[in-house]
Amino acid sequence: MPREITAFSNPLIKYARDLRDKRHRKASRQFLAEGLRILTEARETGRLPKTLFYAAASANHALVYDLSFAVEAAGGESIQTTPDILAKLSGKDNPQAVVGIFDEFDAELASLDRSSSGIWLVAERLRDPGNLGTILRTGDAVGAGGLILIGECVDPFSVEAVRASMGALFTVPVVRSEWHPFLAWLREGPGQLVGLSLDTDTGYREVAYSSPTFLLTGNEAHGMPPEMAAACDVLVKMPMLGKADSLNAAVATAVMAYEVLARQAA
Amino acid sequence: MPREITAFSNPLIKYARDLRDKRHRKASRQFLAEGLRILTEARETGRLPKTLFYAAASANHALVYDLSFAVEAAGGESIQTTPDILAKLSGKDNPQAVVGIFDEFDAELASLDRSSSGIWLVAERLRDPGNLGTILRTGDAVGAGGLILIGECVDPFSVEAVRASMGALFTVPVVRSEWHPFLAWLREGPGQLVGLSLDTDTGYREVAYSSPTFLLTGNEAHGMPPEMAAACDVLVKMPMLGKADSLNAAVATAVMAYEVLARQAA
Repeated sequence: MPREITAFSNPLIKYARDLRDKRHRKASRQFLAEGLRILTEARETGRLPKTLFYAAASANHALVYDLSFAVEAAGGESIQTTPDILAKLSGKDNPQAVVGIFDEFDAELASLDRSSSGIWLVAERLRDPGNLGTILRTGDAVGAGGLILIGECVDPFSVEAVRASMGALFTVPVVRSEWHPFLAWLREGPGQLVGLSLDTDTGYREVAYSSPTFLLTGNEAHGMPPEMAAACDVLVKMPMLGKADSLNAAVATAVMAYEVLARQAA
Repeated sequence: MPREITAFSNPLIKYARDLRDKRHRKASRQFLAEGLRILTEARETGRLPKTLFYAAASANHALVYDLSFAVEAAGGESIQTTPDILAKLSGKDNPQAVVGIFDEFDAELASLDRSSSGIWLVAERLRDPGNLGTILRTGDAVGAGGLILIGECVDPFSVEAVRASMGALFTVPVVRSEWHPFLAWLREGPGQLVGLSLDTDTGYREVAYSSPTFLLTGNEAHGMPPEMAAACDVLVKMPMLGKADSLNAAVATAVMAYEVLARQAA
C-alpha cells in the first residue's frame, strides 16, 4: 500500500528536495528524475526509482499505477503526496508530475566495449547542464556507445541535465574521467580521436571516419587545450559564415555525430 | 559624464529589472541584453543600448569605456552602478557584467530579401528560450537569411533567449508571423519548404536542396500540425537509432541547416 505524505517537513521530502543540490547528491550518490516520460524510459532500461512520488490526482493514471506497482515489487517505496510538495520537488507547477529518487550509476572506462558502436562522444569541461542533457539525447539518437566526460564537467545527475536528456541519461552510458586516463584507455585499442577546432583547414565533411570514432568537444567558452588538440588523430572545422564565430557545444557535437553516422553507413 | 545610481529603489533600475518580465517588454517594446561580448556584437551591427549599466570596477575596461562613450555619443545614457544592482539586473553574480536596455527591432516578412541567402530557418510554436537562442546562433553560423517564428513562440527578446543567442539576435533577422501569412508570402516567390518529420521515408541526405530552402521545425513536444506538413514541398527524416525517438529542436535544426549548407555549396 503506498504511503501518503502531506507535510513539507517530512524528512523524506526534505531529503528529496536536497538532491537538487550537488553537495547532497555527492554525499548520497542518489539523484532526482522527474516526469512520466523520463521515468517510463528509465523503467524500460531496467532502472526503477528507489522512491517514487506522485500526486493523488494521477494515482489512477495507468502508467503511474504500473510504475508505482513496479517500484514496490522491486522493494522500493511509492509515495502519494500533494501537488504542492510535488511542485516543490520537481521545480515545476504540474500536478501530473511524478518524481523519482534513483541511485547514481556511472560507468567506468574499463567497462566500455568500444566495438559496440561506431560513435563515441567525449566532452571536455562541459559546463552547461542543458548542453550535457542535449548531448546525451543526441547520443541516444545516433546510437553512440557512450558519453565520456573529461575533467571538471557539470554533474550529469543534476536536475537540469537529467531533464534536458529527456531520458537519454538512462540509455547512454556516461563515464566521468580525466584526460590522461582516458587517453591511455583510448590508445589500448582501435579508435580515431576527432577534435572540433577552429585552428585547422580540414573541413568536417572531408574526413574518412573510421569505426569507432571518438568525437571530442571542448569547453563551451575556451575550446580544448593545445595538449588535447595535439593528441587528436585529426582536427576538423565546421563552416562558420557568421559574425559570432561560435556554435553551441551541443549543436556542434550533433552536427559532427550525424556526419560520422552518415559516413560510416555509406 | 556618466550618471551614478546606487539605490535599488531608483525608478530606472526598477524599469530595467521589470524588462525581465514579458508583460513589461510588450508594453515598452524594449529588452535587456547583458555581457560585454553580446553588447560588443550588437554595437558591431550598429545597435547600441539606449541605456547602459556597468559597475565602477569595470569603468576603465577599454571595451566598457568605448561602449559607454558610443552610447552617450548616440544620445543614450551610460550609468555607473553597484555590483549588487548589476547582479540583480543581469541575474548573474558577476561584477564585470554590463547590461543594456535596447529597443526591440522585429523584421517584417515584406522586408526580407529571400535571394540574400540559400537557407532560412522557420520555427513553429518554439517554446524554449534556450532553443530559440541556440537556433539564432546556428543561423548566424550557417549564414541564414533569418529566423521566421510561426504562431505562439517564446519571446526572442527574453533574457534567456538573448543570452543563448550569444549575440546572434543582433545579426540574424527575426520575423514573428502566423502560418497563413507566412505561407502566402513564401509562395509569392522561389523557395523550397522542407519539413522535418518522423512520418516520411525520405532521408535528410537524399534530397536536393534548392536555393532558397526554408527549413521548418515543429514544436518541441508535438512536432508540426498535419496542415503544415502537407504544405511542405518535401518532408525529410533524420536517423533515430535510440530509444527516445526524439532530438532537441535546436539540434535537429542545426543538423539540417549544415546539411543544406554543404549540399548547396557542392
